Amino acid sequence: MTITNGRDLTPVLDRVDRTLEASLERLFAFLRIPSISAQPAHAGDCRRAAEWLCAELAGIGLDASVRETPGHPMVVAHDRGAAEGPHVLFYGHYDVQPVDPLDLWHSAPFEPQLVRDGDGERIVARGASDDKGQVMTFVEALRALRAEFGTLPLRVSMVIEGEEESGGANLLPFLQANRDELHADVALICDTGMLEGGVPAITTALRGMVGEEVVIRGADRDLHSGIYGNAARNPLEVLCRILGAVRDPATGRVLLQGFYDGVQDPPEAVRAQWRAIAPSDAGFLGPVGLSVPAGEQGYSAVEQTWCRPTFEINGISGGYAGDGFKTVLPAEASAKISFRLVSGQDPARIRDAFRAHVRAMLPADCTVRFTPHG
Amino acid sequence: MTITNGRDLTPVLDRVDRTLEASLERLFAFLRIPSISAQPAHAGDCRRAAEWLCAELAGIGLDASVRETPGHPMVVAHDRGAAEGPHVLFYGHYDVQPVDPLDLWHSAPFEPQLVRDGDGERIVARGASDDKGQVMTFVEALRALRAEFGTLPLRVSMVIEGEEESGGANLLPFLQANRDELHADVALICDTGMLEGGVPAITTALRGMVGEEVVIRGADRDLHSGIYGNAARNPLEVLCRILGAVRDPATGRVLLQGFYDGVQDPPEAVRAQWRAIAPSDAGFLGPVGLSVPAGEQGYSAVEQTWCRPTFEINGISGGYAGDGFKTVLPAEASAKISFRLVSGQDPARIRDAFRAHVRAMLPADCTVRFTPHG
Repeated sequence: MTITNGRDLTPVLDRVDRTLEASLERLFAFLRIPSISAQPAHAGDCRRAAEWLCAELAGIGLDASVRETPGHPMVVAHDRGAAEGPHVLFYGHYDVQPVDPLDLWHSAPFEPQLVRDGDGERIVARGASDDKGQVMTFVEALRALRAEFGTLPLRVSMVIEGEEESGGANLLPFLQANRDELHADVALICDTGMLEGGVPAITTALRGMVGEEVVIRGADRDLHSGIYGNAARNPLEVLCRILGAVRDPATGRVLLQGFYDGVQDPPEAVRAQWRAIAPSDAGFLGPVGLSVPAGEQGYSAVEQTWCRPTFEINGISGGYAGDGFKTVLPAEASAKISFRLVSGQDPARIRDAFRAHVRAMLPADCTVRFTPHG
Repeated sequence: MTITNGRDLTPVLDRVDRTLEASLERLFAFLRIPSISAQPAHAGDCRRAAEWLCAELAGIGLDASVRETPGHPMVVAHDRGAAEGPHVLFYGHYDVQPVDPLDLWHSAPFEPQLVRDGDGERIVARGASDDKGQVMTFVEALRALRAEFGTLPLRVSMVIEGEEESGGANLLPFLQANRDELHADVALICDTGMLEGGVPAITTALRGMVGEEVVIRGADRDLHSGIYGNAARNPLEVLCRILGAVRDPATGRVLLQGFYDGVQDPPEAVRAQWRAIAPSDAGFLGPVGLSVPAGEQGYSAVEQTWCRPTFEINGISGGYAGDGFKTVLPAEASAKISFRLVSGQDPARIRDAFRAHVRAMLPADCTVRFTPHG
């Protein structure tokens, strides 16, 4: 018998099992909406996802609304529940990442599939595990609880944003503007994963992100590398030199001024717990074809990703990338880079340190543009 | 009066002026064929360009044929002329470079335009100056000479290839296989430019090229940089570090083992001639928005491009390059790079030295693929 707040949960769990087919159909409908927040062409799809979710929440009796922001809208919902219980604020997001390169997908990203393989049955679709699946798990739990019990033993509010994958610039202003409405005793973020299939996890800290696009410009037009090569500054080469110098290849440490200021290691007791429950380097990296932790020496793969800040290059483009070859010396080269930050780091100072690093290495005749992305 | 081999050229030049309109129409027809040799989708257009040119040459009385190769065909033509004269072999190419990014064109690349600006009238189209314009100048000269004189005072053969912009792998084997037919006293290459509008040039040496595509692979799939960043090797960062280390930023010299073996400076007398006729650094770089020669210290911009070998990055791609941001840690990163070589360098050794440099800097868990492009 499973108990919550003195009540027997068995009928709720039975209902969840009994109605699984309908729950899956709802999740699949949600997954079919291509709510790619980073791509302006999908702005209408983002709104459609918000409206779909709002209608679902209203349908199970919550006080739900789509709320405007300067970007994609928020979905806010309240279940007043027991007046005296604690107030839980649930956070999730309805937007998803872009899907290219499409040729690496085995099925269409917005046509959800149930795939059975060695690990059991999985749902394959863009957003299934980040974050529509998690959001709908919570929604279906609310639906079953309300169907069996009528009211909840606590108050629940939900904020589901549409810009988690594109910087989330409007989340903090929205929370601040609606401070009284959303004030809660506990915030529950379910945009996280499990340790492995069958091993649930309670995530107690998340890394933050500073994203940046950097564009290096040399000549005022694309040049022929046979005519200008050597004498004309090549922005791709400049970009490589600058980005290749952010990290010390020997130690794996990020070399930006003050990057590790305020960063502390977790207590040894926590590190010991992690060693007991978390995958080994081989267990973490092996499944994706790797073996050696690439980050700071002295930290395991799990420590490098759970508690250490890092620098990543997320994309580079410039010059010719099509079939064959083109002897172009491009006018511009651009990169999207990001930092994952941990407690104690100041995102604004990290961004400034990166920009200072770029400017310090910029040779004559080059200019640089920065665009922040979260 | 202009004399050639004892004959008055005036009627030929008059005819050229009189028939300029028709000559331009023929050039424009040639320019309208999108013979992009690097892109397989344009293979049919390359053949069409070859057949068009062959028909033109046959039409003015040359013994012309389209000749197969393992790639795009060659056009070969002979004008037997005076049996006792010298034999001149003319080389050109009918293929052109890719046209992207299309949004930087002011008119459609395969719809030739006559544009009048501060420098006079120019023909704007892909291939107008490389190399269809030069080829048709020679063809129209032959047409006018034959129309006025009946025969030429020397023997002329032409080899017009279709792979100059995509490596030209079939040219040397073709010349070797047809050695007797094409043996000549003088080879005339008109795939070159003028010093500036109104200042013709005789080009006495050209740099060669080694092109290479390099693909660095890390994990066996694209990863989420929030989950794997730091611990998983980032191929974009590896690529930056490797390509950023090919050249010494302080001296501008290429650091590959043996890169300058066999390279000699031109005689001081030639350098002095160049100083007298060639543009200054400001004159060479200023028109494209640059000011400082980026290559080896101690050489002018003109020397860096006319007689010094170099390394260029012609394109990089990997990760996400679309709108907004995607926190991807890509499985692969690729670059197209090229070396411009001068007399004394061995292309095979340069390619080997580059590959050795890449392999020496490749960290654990990474693999590399190379594809030669000319």
